Amino acid sequence: MHRFFVPAETMQSKAVLLAGDLAHQLSRVLRLRAGDQIELLDNSGRAWLARLDEVSPRCCRATTLACYRPSTECRTRFVLYQGLPRGHKFDLILQKATELGASRIVPVRAARSIQMAAEEATPARARRWERIIQEAAEQSGRALMPALSEAISLPAAIDEIEEGDLCLAGAPGERATPIRHVLERIPQAPTSVRLFVGPEGGLDDAELGSLQAAGVSLVSLGPRVLRTETAGLVMLALASYALGEMELPGEHGF
Amino acid sequence: MHRFFVPAETMQSKAVLLAGDLAHQLSRVLRLRAGDQIELLDNSGRAWLARLDEVSPRCCRATTLACYRPSTECRTRFVLYQGLPRGHKFDLILQKATELGASRIVPVRAARSIQMAAEEATPARARRWERIIQEAAEQSGRALMPALSEAISLPAAIDEIEEGDLCLAGAPGERATPIRHVLERIPQAPTSVRLFVGPEGGLDDAELGSLQAAGVSLVSLGPRVLRTETAGLVMLALASYALGEMELPGEHGF
Repeated sequence: MHRFFVPAETMQSKAVLLAGDLAHQLSRVLRLRAGDQIELLDNSGRAWLARLDEVSPRCCRATTLACYRPSTECRTRFVLYQGLPRGHKFDLILQKATELGASRIVPVRAARSIQMAAEEATPARARRWERIIQEAAEQSGRALMPALSEAISLPAAIDEIEEGDLCLAGAPGERATPIRHVLERIPQAPTSVRLFVGPEGGLDDAELGSLQAAGVSLVSLGPRVLRTETAGLVMLALASYALGEMELPGEHGF
Repeated sequence: MHRFFVPAETMQSKAVLLAGDLAHQLSRVLRLRAGDQIELLDNSGRAWLARLDEVSPRCCRATTLACYRPSTECRTRFVLYQGLPRGHKFDLILQKATELGASRIVPVRAARSIQMAAEEATPARARRWERIIQEAAEQSGRALMPALSEAISLPAAIDEIEEGDLCLAGAPGERATPIRHVLERIPQAPTSVRLFVGPEGGLDDAELGSLQAAGVSLVSLGPRVLRTETAGLVMLALASYALGEMELPGEHGF
Protein backbone atom coordinates (compact mmCIF):
# COMPACT_ATOMS: atom_id res chain seq x y z
CA MET A 1 0.00 0.00 0.00
CA HIS A 2 1.18 3.55 -0.72
CA ARG A 3 2.24 5.45 2.39
CA PHE A 4 2.50 9.19 2.86
CA PHE A 5 3.69 11.44 5.64
CA VAL A 6 1.38 14.45 5.99
CA PRO A 7 1.41 17.47 8.32
CA ALA A 8 0.08 16.65 11.80
CA GLU A 9 -2.87 19.06 11.37
CA THR A 10 -4.11 17.04 8.37
CA MET A 11 -4.95 14.16 10.67
CA GLN A 12 -7.13 16.08 13.13
CA SER A 13 -10.45 14.81 11.81
CA LYS A 14 -11.73 11.60 10.21
CA ALA A 15 -12.37 13.50 6.98
CA VAL A 16 -8.97 14.28 5.50
CA LEU A 17 -8.12 16.82 2.79
CA LEU A 18 -4.98 16.18 0.76
CA ALA A 19 -3.86 19.04 -1.49
CA GLY A 20 -0.74 20.26 -3.29
CA ASP A 21 1.96 17.85 -4.47
CA LEU A 22 0.33 14.91 -2.73
CA ALA A 23 -2.98 15.40 -4.60
CA HIS A 24 -1.02 15.56 -7.86
CA GLN A 25 0.91 12.41 -6.97
CA LEU A 26 -2.18 10.45 -5.95
CA SER A 27 -4.17 11.41 -9.04
CA ARG A 28 -1.65 11.86 -11.85
CA VAL A 29 1.41 9.85 -10.87
CA LEU A 30 -0.12 6.89 -9.06
CA ARG A 31 -3.53 7.19 -10.80
CA LEU A 32 -5.41 6.14 -7.69
CA ARG A 33 -9.20 6.32 -7.68
CA ALA A 34 -12.03 6.81 -5.23
CA GLY A 35 -12.29 3.64 -3.15
CA ASP A 36 -8.51 2.95 -3.15
CA GLN A 37 -6.84 2.72 0.25
CA ILE A 38 -3.67 4.48 1.36
CA GLU A 39 -1.75 4.79 4.61
CA LEU A 40 -1.22 8.23 6.14
CA LEU A 41 1.34 9.09 8.82
CA ASP A 42 1.75 12.25 10.86
CA ASN A 43 5.29 11.53 12.11
CA SER A 44 4.02 10.94 15.65
CA GLY A 45 4.49 7.17 15.43
CA ARG A 46 0.84 6.63 14.43
CA ALA A 47 -0.53 5.58 11.05
CA TRP A 48 -4.02 5.72 9.58
CA LEU A 49 -5.61 3.49 7.01
CA ALA A 50 -7.61 5.83 4.79
CA ARG A 51 -10.00 5.38 1.88
CA LEU A 52 -9.93 7.89 -0.93
CA ASP A 53 -13.39 9.36 -1.52
CA GLU A 54 -12.58 11.87 -4.22
CA VAL A 55 -9.42 12.15 -6.31
CA SER A 56 -8.40 15.21 -8.31
CA PRO A 57 -5.04 16.80 -9.07
CA ARG A 58 -5.86 19.89 -6.96
CA CYS A 59 -7.36 18.24 -3.89
CA CYS A 60 -8.23 14.73 -2.70
CA ARG A 61 -10.69 13.82 0.04
CA ALA A 62 -10.24 10.71 2.18
CA THR A 63 -11.81 9.11 5.24
CA THR A 64 -9.71 7.43 7.91
CA LEU A 65 -10.79 3.87 8.66
CA ALA A 66 -8.38 2.84 11.42
CA CYS A 67 -5.50 4.21 13.46
CA TYR A 68 -2.59 2.05 14.63
CA ARG A 69 1.10 2.15 15.55
CA PRO A 70 3.37 0.40 13.02
CA SER A 71 6.01 -1.67 14.82
CA THR A 72 8.79 -0.67 12.47
CA GLU A 73 10.64 1.72 14.76
CA CYS A 74 13.73 0.64 16.71
CA ARG A 75 13.66 0.59 20.47
CA THR A 76 17.18 1.99 20.39
CA ARG A 77 17.81 5.58 19.32
CA PHE A 78 20.49 5.56 16.62
CA VAL A 79 22.16 8.91 16.00
CA LEU A 80 24.52 9.16 13.04
CA TYR A 81 27.10 11.95 13.25
CA GLN A 82 28.33 12.08 9.68
CA GLY A 83 31.34 14.15 8.66
CA LEU A 84 30.06 16.22 5.72
CA PRO A 85 31.21 14.52 2.54
CA ARG A 86 31.57 15.94 -0.95
CA GLY A 87 28.92 16.21 -3.59
CA HIS A 88 25.81 14.10 -3.45
CA LYS A 89 27.10 11.41 -1.10
CA PHE A 90 25.10 12.84 1.74
CA ASP A 91 21.90 12.15 -0.24
CA LEU A 92 22.75 8.45 -0.28
CA ILE A 93 23.64 8.50 3.41
CA LEU A 94 20.30 10.07 4.33
CA GLN A 95 18.34 7.58 2.26
CA LYS A 96 20.16 4.52 3.59
CA ALA A 97 20.33 5.69 7.22
CA THR A 98 16.56 6.20 7.10
CA GLU A 99 15.99 2.68 5.75
CA LEU A 100 18.29 1.31 8.43
CA GLY A 101 16.33 2.88 11.28
CA ALA A 102 18.32 5.98 12.29
CA SER A 103 16.48 8.34 14.67
CA ARG A 104 18.57 11.38 13.89
CA ILE A 105 21.22 12.33 11.38
CA VAL A 106 23.66 15.09 12.23
CA PRO A 107 26.01 16.50 9.58
CA VAL A 108 29.33 17.28 11.26
CA ARG A 109 31.85 19.87 10.05
CA ALA A 110 34.95 17.75 10.52
CA ALA A 111 38.55 18.82 9.98
CA ARG A 112 38.66 17.08 6.60
CA SER A 113 35.18 18.19 5.44
CA ILE A 114 36.01 20.44 2.54
CA GLN A 115 34.84 23.99 3.07
CA MET A 116 32.55 23.85 0.06
CA ALA A 117 30.68 20.95 1.57
CA ALA A 118 29.85 23.00 4.65
CA GLU A 119 28.79 25.97 2.52
CA GLU A 120 26.56 23.79 0.39
CA ALA A 121 24.29 23.24 3.38
CA THR A 122 21.90 25.89 2.04
CA PRO A 123 18.15 26.01 2.77
CA ALA A 124 17.42 24.60 -0.72
CA ARG A 125 19.72 21.70 -0.04
CA ALA A 126 18.17 21.16 3.38
CA ARG A 127 14.72 20.91 1.74
CA ARG A 128 16.05 18.36 -0.71
CA TRP A 129 17.51 16.39 2.19
CA GLU A 130 14.16 16.47 4.01
CA ARG A 131 12.43 15.15 0.90
CA ILE A 132 14.92 12.29 0.55
CA ILE A 133 14.32 11.33 4.19
CA GLN A 134 10.56 11.48 3.79
CA GLU A 135 10.56 9.30 0.68
CA ALA A 136 12.88 6.75 2.28
CA ALA A 137 10.75 6.66 5.45
CA GLU A 138 7.58 6.13 3.38
CA GLN A 139 9.18 3.44 1.26
CA SER A 140 10.76 1.51 4.12
CA GLY A 141 7.60 1.46 6.22
CA ARG A 142 8.79 3.68 9.03
CA ALA A 143 6.39 5.44 11.39
CA LEU A 144 8.82 8.24 12.20
CA MET A 145 11.13 10.24 9.97
CA PRO A 146 14.66 10.62 11.30
CA ALA A 147 15.33 14.17 12.42
CA LEU A 148 17.90 15.99 10.32
CA SER A 149 19.93 18.42 12.40
CA GLU A 150 21.82 21.50 11.31
CA ALA A 151 25.51 20.91 10.67
CA ILE A 152 27.51 21.18 13.91
CA SER A 153 31.15 20.96 14.96
CA LEU A 154 32.63 17.75 16.35
CA PRO A 155 32.99 19.23 19.89
CA ALA A 156 29.27 20.11 19.79
CA ALA A 157 28.50 16.55 18.68
CA ILE A 158 30.60 15.16 21.53
CA ASP A 159 28.71 17.39 24.00
CA GLU A 160 25.52 15.50 23.18
CA ILE A 161 26.84 12.23 24.63
CA GLU A 162 24.97 11.09 27.74
CA GLU A 163 25.71 8.55 30.46
CA GLY A 164 24.97 5.01 29.28
CA ASP A 165 25.09 5.74 25.54
CA LEU A 166 26.95 3.35 23.29
CA CYS A 167 29.29 5.53 21.24
CA LEU A 168 31.39 4.29 18.34
CA ALA A 169 33.64 6.14 15.90
CA GLY A 170 35.02 4.62 12.70
CA ALA A 171 38.83 4.72 12.81
CA PRO A 172 41.76 3.12 10.99
CA GLY A 173 42.72 -0.36 12.14
CA GLU A 174 45.93 0.54 13.97
CA ARG A 175 44.11 2.83 16.46
CA ALA A 176 40.89 0.88 16.70
CA THR A 177 39.26 -2.24 18.13
CA PRO A 178 37.43 -4.52 15.69
CA ILE A 179 33.78 -3.48 15.85
CA ARG A 180 32.72 -7.04 16.68
CA HIS A 181 34.81 -7.03 19.86
CA VAL A 182 32.90 -3.94 21.02
CA LEU A 183 29.42 -4.98 19.90
CA GLU A 184 29.70 -8.47 21.39
CA ARG A 185 30.54 -7.03 24.80
CA ILE A 186 27.78 -4.48 25.28
CA PRO A 187 26.88 -4.85 28.96
CA GLN A 188 23.24 -3.81 28.54
CA ALA A 189 21.03 -2.50 25.78
CA PRO A 190 21.79 1.22 25.51
CA THR A 191 19.00 3.75 24.99
CA SER A 192 21.06 5.69 22.49
CA VAL A 193 23.75 4.58 20.09
CA ARG A 194 25.86 7.41 18.70
CA LEU A 195 27.91 6.66 15.61
CA PHE A 196 30.66 9.03 14.48
CA VAL A 197 31.95 8.83 10.93
CA GLY A 198 34.53 11.07 9.28
CA PRO A 199 34.26 12.63 5.83
CA GLU A 200 36.53 11.49 2.96
CA GLY A 201 39.93 10.82 4.52
CA GLY A 202 38.35 10.07 7.89
CA LEU A 203 38.52 11.84 11.22
CA ASP A 204 41.98 13.22 11.94
CA ASP A 205 44.20 12.27 14.89
CA ALA A 206 43.08 15.19 17.05
CA GLU A 207 39.41 14.37 16.38
CA LEU A 208 39.92 10.69 17.19
CA GLY A 209 41.75 11.74 20.36
CA SER A 210 38.91 13.96 21.53
CA LEU A 211 36.33 11.26 20.77
CA GLN A 212 38.37 8.73 22.73
CA ALA A 213 38.74 11.16 25.63
CA ALA A 214 34.94 11.47 25.68
CA GLY A 215 34.60 7.70 26.06
CA VAL A 216 33.79 6.92 22.43
CA SER A 217 35.12 3.51 21.28
CA LEU A 218 37.26 3.73 18.17
CA VAL A 219 36.22 0.82 16.01
CA SER A 220 37.62 -0.72 12.86
CA LEU A 221 35.49 -2.21 10.11
CA GLY A 222 38.27 -4.48 8.89
CA PRO A 223 41.20 -4.41 6.50
CA ARG A 224 39.32 -2.98 3.52
CA VAL A 225 38.98 0.78 3.42
CA LEU A 226 35.30 1.74 3.28
CA ARG A 227 34.20 5.01 1.72
CA THR A 228 32.68 7.47 4.15
CA GLU A 229 29.11 6.80 2.97
CA THR A 230 29.63 3.06 3.34
CA ALA A 231 31.21 3.23 6.80
CA GLY A 232 28.26 4.92 8.51
CA LEU A 233 25.73 2.59 6.94
CA VAL A 234 27.73 -0.50 7.85
CA MET A 235 28.13 0.71 11.45
CA LEU A 236 24.41 1.41 11.63
CA ALA A 237 23.55 -2.03 10.22
CA LEU A 238 25.97 -3.83 12.54
CA ALA A 239 24.87 -1.99 15.69
CA SER A 240 21.25 -2.58 14.78
CA TYR A 241 21.97 -6.28 14.18
CA ALA A 242 23.89 -6.68 17.43
CA LEU A 243 21.11 -5.00 19.44
CA GLY A 244 18.40 -7.24 17.97
CA GLU A 245 16.80 -4.45 15.96
CA MET A 246 16.81 -6.58 12.81
CA GLU A 247 14.40 -9.00 14.40
CA LEU A 248 10.67 -8.60 14.04
CA PRO A 249 8.69 -7.56 17.14
CA GLY A 250 8.49 -10.53 19.49
CA GLU A 251 11.72 -12.08 18.21
CA HIS A 252 14.13 -9.93 20.18
CA GLY A 253 16.91 -11.84 21.82
CA PHE A 254 18.87 -9.10 23.53
CA MET B 1 49.41 5.75 -1.80
CA HIS B 2 47.69 5.54 -5.19
CA ARG B 3 46.92 1.99 -6.27
CA PHE B 4 46.28 0.69 -9.77
CA PHE B 5 45.29 -2.63 -11.24
CA VAL B 6 47.24 -3.31 -14.45
CA PRO B 7 47.22 -6.21 -16.91
CA ALA B 8 49.20 -9.23 -15.64
CA GLU B 9 51.70 -8.94 -18.52
CA THR B 10 52.69 -5.44 -17.35
CA MET B 11 54.25 -6.93 -14.24
CA GLN B 12 56.55 -9.42 -15.94
CA SER B 13 59.74 -7.41 -15.49
CA LYS B 14 61.13 -5.01 -12.88
CA ALA B 15 60.98 -2.20 -15.43
CA VAL B 16 57.32 -1.39 -15.95
CA LEU B 17 55.72 0.58 -18.79
CA LEU B 18 52.38 2.24 -18.08
CA ALA B 19 50.58 3.66 -21.11
CA GLY B 20 47.08 4.72 -22.15
CA ASP B 21 44.54 6.01 -19.63
CA LEU B 22 46.78 5.19 -16.71
CA ALA B 23 49.65 7.34 -18.05
CA HIS B 24 47.20 10.18 -18.53
CA GLN B 25 45.83 9.73 -15.03
CA LEU B 26 49.28 9.59 -13.40
CA SER B 27 50.58 12.65 -15.23
CA ARG B 28 47.61 14.92 -15.80
CA VAL B 29 45.02 13.99 -13.20
CA LEU B 30 47.19 13.07 -10.20
CA ARG B 31 50.19 15.15 -11.37
CA LEU B 32 52.67 12.62 -10.05
CA ARG B 33 56.35 13.08 -10.82
CA ALA B 34 59.46 11.00 -11.27
CA GLY B 35 60.44 9.68 -7.84
CA ASP B 36 56.85 9.32 -6.58
CA GLN B 37 55.80 5.86 -5.45
CA ILE B 38 52.67 3.97 -6.44
CA GLU B 39 51.27 0.51 -5.83
CA LEU B 40 50.58 -1.78 -8.79
CA LEU B 41 48.40 -4.90 -8.71
CA ASP B 42 47.95 -7.62 -11.31
CA ASN B 43 44.77 -9.14 -9.82
CA SER B 44 46.67 -12.27 -8.76
CA GLY B 45 46.65 -11.30 -5.07
CA ARG B 46 50.12 -9.73 -5.30
CA ALA B 47 51.05 -6.06 -5.15
CA TRP B 48 54.21 -4.20 -6.12
CA LEU B 49 55.61 -1.03 -4.70
CA ALA B 50 56.92 0.90 -7.70
CA ARG B 51 58.84 4.13 -8.19
CA LEU B 52 57.99 6.32 -11.16
CA ASP B 53 61.12 7.04 -13.23
CA GLU B 54 59.56 9.01 -16.04
CA VAL B 55 56.09 10.55 -16.22
CA SER B 56 54.41 11.69 -19.42
CA PRO B 57 50.77 11.65 -20.60
CA ARG B 58 51.55 9.06 -23.29
CA CYS B 59 53.72 6.65 -21.33
CA CYS B 60 55.19 6.36 -17.85
CA ARG B 61 58.17 4.23 -16.82
CA ALA B 62 58.46 2.76 -13.33
CA THR B 63 60.69 0.34 -11.43
CA THR B 64 59.29 -2.16 -8.97
CA LEU B 65 60.90 -2.00 -5.55
CA ALA B 66 59.11 -4.77 -3.66
CA CYS B 67 56.46 -7.43 -4.14
CA TYR B 68 54.06 -8.50 -1.38
CA ARG B 69 50.58 -9.89 -0.71
CA PRO B 70 48.18 -7.38 0.85
CA SER B 71 46.16 -9.00 3.62
CA THR B 72 42.94 -7.31 2.62
CA GLU B 73 41.19 -10.29 1.05
CA CYS B 74 38.60 -12.33 2.96
CA ARG B 75 39.30 -15.97 3.73
CA THR B 76 35.65 -16.63 2.92
CA ARG B 77 34.40 -16.46 -0.67
CA PHE B 78 31.35 -14.19 -0.76
CA VAL B 79 29.20 -14.52 -3.87
CA LEU B 80 26.37 -12.01 -4.32
CA TYR B 81 23.53 -13.15 -6.57
CA GLN B 82 21.75 -9.89 -7.20
CA GLY B 83 18.37 -9.71 -8.92
CA LEU B 84 18.91 -7.17 -11.71
CA PRO B 85 17.49 -3.87 -10.48
CA ARG B 86 16.39 -0.86 -12.50
CA GLY B 87 18.54 1.97 -13.72
CA HIS B 88 21.86 2.72 -12.12
CA LYS B 89 21.32 0.86 -8.87
CA PHE B 90 23.56 -1.96 -10.00
CA ASP B 91 26.46 0.52 -10.22
CA LEU B 92 26.10 1.25 -6.52
CA ILE B 93 25.79 -2.44 -5.70
CA LEU B 94 29.01 -3.24 -7.57
CA GLN B 95 30.92 -0.46 -5.87
CA LYS B 96 29.75 -1.30 -2.36
CA ALA B 97 30.00 -5.09 -2.75
CA THR B 98 33.61 -4.60 -3.87
CA GLU B 99 34.39 -2.46 -0.83
CA LEU B 100 32.74 -5.05 1.40
CA GLY B 101 34.92 -7.90 0.13
CA ALA B 102 32.73 -9.81 -2.36
CA SER B 103 34.61 -12.38 -4.46
CA ARG B 104 32.07 -12.54 -7.22
CA ILE B 105 28.94 -10.67 -8.23
CA VAL B 106 26.33 -12.40 -10.34
CA PRO B 107 23.43 -10.46 -11.87
CA VAL B 108 20.35 -12.67 -11.76
CA ARG B 109 17.36 -12.39 -14.11
CA ALA B 110 14.68 -12.78 -11.46
CA ALA B 111 10.93 -12.95 -12.04
CA ARG B 112 10.50 -9.32 -11.01
CA SER B 113 13.58 -7.98 -12.84
CA ILE B 114 12.00 -5.77 -15.45
CA GLN B 115 12.77 -6.89 -18.97
CA MET B 116 14.56 -3.65 -19.76
CA ALA B 117 17.03 -4.24 -16.96
CA ALA B 118 18.07 -7.56 -18.47
CA GLU B 119 18.39 -6.02 -21.92
CA GLU B 120 20.50 -3.19 -20.59
CA ALA B 121 23.27 -5.67 -19.83
CA THR B 122 25.06 -4.66 -23.04
CA PRO B 123 28.82 -4.91 -23.61
CA ALA B 124 29.17 -1.15 -23.05
CA ARG B 125 27.42 -1.47 -19.76
CA ALA B 126 29.55 -4.46 -18.82
CA ARG B 127 32.69 -2.36 -19.45
CA ARG B 128 31.33 0.39 -17.22
CA TRP B 129 30.61 -2.18 -14.52
CA GLU B 130 34.16 -3.54 -14.79
CA ARG B 131 35.52 -0.01 -14.38
CA ILE B 132 33.39 0.61 -11.29
CA ILE B 133 34.67 -2.61 -9.74
CA GLN B 134 38.28 -1.77 -10.55
CA GLU B 135 38.05 1.72 -9.05
CA ALA B 136 36.36 0.40 -5.91
CA ALA B 137 38.97 -2.35 -5.55
CA GLU B 138 41.80 0.18 -5.92
CA GLN B 139 40.24 2.59 -3.49
CA SER B 140 39.40 0.03 -0.81
CA GLY B 141 42.84 -1.57 -0.85
CA ARG B 142 41.84 -4.93 -2.26
CA ALA B 143 44.34 -7.28 -3.88
CA LEU B 144 41.73 -8.98 -6.06
CA MET B 145 38.87 -7.56 -8.06
CA PRO B 146 35.58 -9.39 -7.61
CA ALA B 147 34.65 -11.32 -10.73
CA LEU B 148 31.56 -10.02 -12.49
CA SER B 149 29.60 -12.82 -14.12
CA GLU B 150 27.16 -12.68 -17.03
CA ALA B 151 23.53 -12.41 -15.99
CA ILE B 152 22.06 -15.87 -15.29
CA SER B 153 18.70 -17.30 -14.30
CA LEU B 154 17.87 -18.14 -10.70
CA PRO B 155 17.89 -21.92 -11.37
CA ALA B 156 21.41 -21.55 -12.83
CA ALA B 157 22.44 -19.60 -9.72
CA ILE B 158 21.01 -22.32 -7.48
CA ASP B 159 22.96 -24.95 -9.46
CA GLU B 160 26.20 -23.34 -8.29
CA ILE B 161 25.56 -24.21 -4.63
CA GLU B 162 28.02 -26.72 -3.22
CA GLU B 163 28.06 -28.88 -0.10
CA GLY B 164 29.05 -26.88 2.97
CA ASP B 165 28.24 -23.44 1.54
CA LEU B 166 26.36 -20.97 3.69
CA CYS B 167 23.47 -19.75 1.55
CA LEU B 168 21.11 -16.95 2.52
CA ALA B 169 18.28 -15.28 0.61
CA GLY B 170 16.62 -12.05 1.67
CA ALA B 171 12.90 -12.65 2.21
CA PRO B 172 9.93 -10.92 3.86
CA GLY B 173 9.60 -11.39 7.60
CA GLU B 174 6.65 -13.78 7.58
CA ARG B 175 8.55 -16.45 5.56
CA ALA B 176 11.99 -15.86 7.00
CA THR B 177 14.19 -16.36 10.04
CA PRO B 178 15.89 -13.25 11.48
CA ILE B 179 19.35 -13.18 9.92
CA ARG B 180 20.97 -13.05 13.37
CA HIS B 181 19.44 -16.40 14.31
CA VAL B 182 21.09 -17.95 11.26
CA LEU B 183 24.47 -16.20 11.50
CA GLU B 184 24.88 -16.91 15.20
CA ARG B 185 24.41 -20.63 14.62
CA ILE B 186 26.88 -21.32 11.82
CA PRO B 187 28.38 -24.69 12.78
CA GLN B 188 31.74 -24.03 11.09
CA ALA B 189 33.29 -21.36 8.94
CA PRO B 190 32.05 -22.00 5.39
CA THR B 191 34.38 -21.69 2.40
CA SER B 192 31.71 -19.96 0.35
CA VAL B 193 28.84 -17.74 1.38
CA ARG B 194 26.18 -17.27 -1.30
CA LEU B 195 23.78 -14.38 -0.87
CA PHE B 196 20.60 -14.16 -2.94
CA VAL B 197 18.80 -10.84 -3.24
CA GLY B 198 15.74 -10.07 -5.31
CA PRO B 199 15.26 -7.04 -7.56
CA GLU B 200 12.73 -4.30 -6.67
CA GLY B 201 9.73 -6.10 -5.17
CA GLY B 202 11.92 -8.99 -4.00
CA LEU B 203 12.03 -12.63 -5.04
CA ASP B 204 8.58 -14.06 -5.68
CA ASP B 205 7.00 -17.00 -3.85
CA ALA B 206 8.07 -19.59 -6.41
CA GLU B 207 11.65 -18.29 -6.35
CA LEU B 208 11.75 -18.33 -2.55
CA GLY B 209 10.33 -21.87 -2.65
CA SER B 210 13.01 -23.14 -5.01
CA LEU B 211 15.76 -21.48 -2.95
CA GLN B 212 14.41 -23.08 0.20
CA ALA B 213 14.19 -26.47 -1.53
CA ALA B 214 17.88 -26.09 -2.42
CA GLY B 215 18.76 -25.58 1.27
CA VAL B 216 19.07 -21.79 1.17
CA SER B 217 18.03 -20.11 4.45
CA LEU B 218 15.41 -17.42 3.95
CA VAL B 219 16.46 -14.55 6.19
CA SER B 220 14.76 -11.36 7.28
CA LEU B 221 16.61 -8.09 7.84
CA GLY B 222 14.01 -6.77 10.23
CA PRO B 223 10.74 -4.86 10.16
CA ARG B 224 11.91 -2.04 7.89
CA VAL B 225 11.75 -2.70 4.16
CA LEU B 226 15.20 -2.32 2.64
CA ARG B 227 15.63 -1.39 -1.01
CA THR B 228 17.20 -4.08 -3.15
CA GLU B 229 20.58 -2.35 -3.30
CA THR B 230 20.60 -1.95 0.49
CA ALA B 231 19.58 -5.54 1.25
CA GLY B 232 22.53 -7.18 -0.51
CA LEU B 233 25.05 -4.83 1.04
CA VAL B 234 23.64 -5.30 4.52
CA MET B 235 23.65 -9.09 4.12
CA LEU B 236 27.24 -8.95 2.89
CA ALA B 237 28.30 -6.73 5.80
CA LEU B 238 26.52 -8.89 8.39
CA ALA B 239 27.86 -12.20 7.05
CA SER B 240 31.36 -10.74 6.87
CA TYR B 241 31.03 -9.43 10.45
CA ALA B 242 29.71 -12.74 11.78
CA LEU B 243 32.53 -14.70 10.11
CA GLY B 244 35.24 -12.45 11.56
CA GLU B 245 36.14 -10.89 8.21
CA MET B 246 35.88 -7.39 9.66
CA GLU B 247 38.80 -8.10 11.94
CA LEU B 248 42.36 -7.36 10.89
CA PRO B 249 44.66 -10.32 10.20
CA GLY B 250 45.61 -11.94 13.51
CA GLU B 251 42.44 -10.76 15.24
CA HIS B 252 40.12 -13.43 13.95
CA GLY B 253 37.94 -14.99 16.56
CA PHE B 254 35.88 -17.45 14.55
